[in-house]
Amino acid sequence: MHCHETTIRVRYAETDRMGYVYYGNYATYFEVARVEWLRSLGVSYKELEDNGIALPVSQFNINYLKPAFYDQSLTIKVHVTEVVGAKIFFKYETRNESGELINQAETTLVFFDRKTNKPCAPPKIFLDAYTGVRS
Amino acid sequence: MHCHETTIRVRYAETDRMGYVYYGNYATYFEVARVEWLRSLGVSYKELEDNGIALPVSQFNINYLKPAFYDQSLTIKVHVTEVVGAKIFFKYETRNESGELINQAETTLVFFDRKTNKPCAPPKIFLDAYTGVRS
Amino acid sequence: MHCHETTIRVRYAETDRMGYVYYGNYATYFEVARVEWLRSLGVSYKELEDNGIALPVSQFNINYLKPAFYDQSLTIKVHVTEVVGAKIFFKYETRNESGELINQAETTLVFFDRKTNKPCAPPKIFLDAYTGVRS
Amino acid sequence: MHCHETTIRVRYAETDRMGYVYYGNYATYFEVARVEWLRSLGVSYKELEDNGIALPVSQFNINYLKPAFYDQSLTIKVHVTEVVGAKIFFKYETRNESGELINQAETTLVFFDRKTNKPCAPPKIFLDAYTGVRS
Repeated sequence: MHCHETTIRVRYAETDRMGYVYYGNYATYFEVARVEWLRSLGVSYKELEDNGIALPVSQFNINYLKPAFYDQSLTIKVHVTEVVGAKIFFKYETRNESGELINQAETTLVFFDRKTNKPCAPPKIFLDAYTGVRS
Repeated sequence: MHCHETTIRVRYAETDRMGYVYYGNYATYFEVARVEWLRSLGVSYKELEDNGIALPVSQFNINYLKPAFYDQSLTIKVHVTEVVGAKIFFKYETRNESGELINQAETTLVFFDRKTNKPCAPPKIFLDAYTGVRS
Repeated sequence: MHCHETTIRVRYAETDRMGYVYYGNYATYFEVARVEWLRSLGVSYKELEDNGIALPVSQFNINYLKPAFYDQSLTIKVHVTEVVGAKIFFKYETRNESGELINQAETTLVFFDRKTNKPCAPPKIFLDAYTGVRS
Repeated sequence: MHCHETTIRVRYAETDRMGYVYYGNYATYFEVARVEWLRSLGVSYKELEDNGIALPVSQFNINYLKPAFYDQSLTIKVHVTEVVGAKIFFKYETRNESGELINQAETTLVFFDRKTNKPCAPPKIFLDAYTGVRS
């Protein structure tokens, strides 16, 4: 299944004066979770980009249920729900050390050809890995 | 009307290797826009917090239409659509120097009493300023 | 003189759980101060880079005297002390709203030709502006 | 010996339009390295802070030799050189995946009593762990 779990330790730099992880920092955590999911399939996002395919985010929705705090070890479960045309849809769930769900999020990313500067089909290396895991 | 415009110059630190403003940094830009809107009403968010009222974000949705680039001067239009119970709803539009709409976003924030650790009614200083502008 | 002052309002995202501006964020503030100094001379750092000249930092020293806090308006005084070969030396002083000196810093940056991937002489557009102001 | 190695994978958010790790982000990496060194001694920095002892940075010097790039796995070697009065002195070396030294840094931190708001002696829990390792 296109599910993967990544654990991230909250850094001091990521907290704010309220003592919470600043709400914008989850975007970074989810980026790490996506890239580690790809790596678990045998695909390096860096190599995709070096080969001219970028994956910018076109949509990001997040629902914050509870704050996270300094030094907590957060588990982010990432799940690819669909790949349609140039688009890939991700869902995320973040849990704290007690297993409590602290937020839920979704992103849409677009396979993007950096030469033509246009959306493009997912590259073969990605599709092979993605289809291989699903089947 | 509860509309306000803030201009933010993109910093080098906020760009990524794609040359774009990193997608997570708009959360920070919208925070600045909200706080400057409050200041324009005569309300200091810092003082609210020092008086025991915080405004954590409970929901954040953003739709990215175009990237922003280093050193661009971005204009963020913030608009309060509703204050209901402990919740306050914001909409944002970011435009680049050519006036192009580059993203649209919404956040929900919750007035939160730091002593009781519970959502609370908006404080009088906010309601007076908010109602004063609307009427 | 090669002195310039930039004012930066501390963002919520830049604070940490101690309530201070996180110590790493001053690097960003000084970058803004350098770029605004250049702009005051009529030189756009973005255009320098678009023309193949980058200015990476090779050395950064900072001495923290007092913390800065959320929403404070900090004044950063930047001062170019020397341009020698490919190197340019900056000094910074950050003061809070009460005029108290809160930190002192120095950076060394290197003019860098992105085609040859080597240090290079400062470009004419910079030298003309720099010499013009000094004389 | 008071040496410890921490490995950090470069996040996309940490790169800049030059394709390098932004120069200010190493402050965060060194914070992680310090905290993991403490954890390796059995001391939780979070607990120190929760018990009223903070460790703000009073001095930070860094010498950048080579850039780091997206997705690289960086190894940071942290080394405590001295604990004198309320001060603790750290040295850092960052190496990339090829083992090349990419920067060297030093920080001074101050044990700080949050109740008295003054520098203080290192707490017993730290001294026991620190002395235990050294002897």
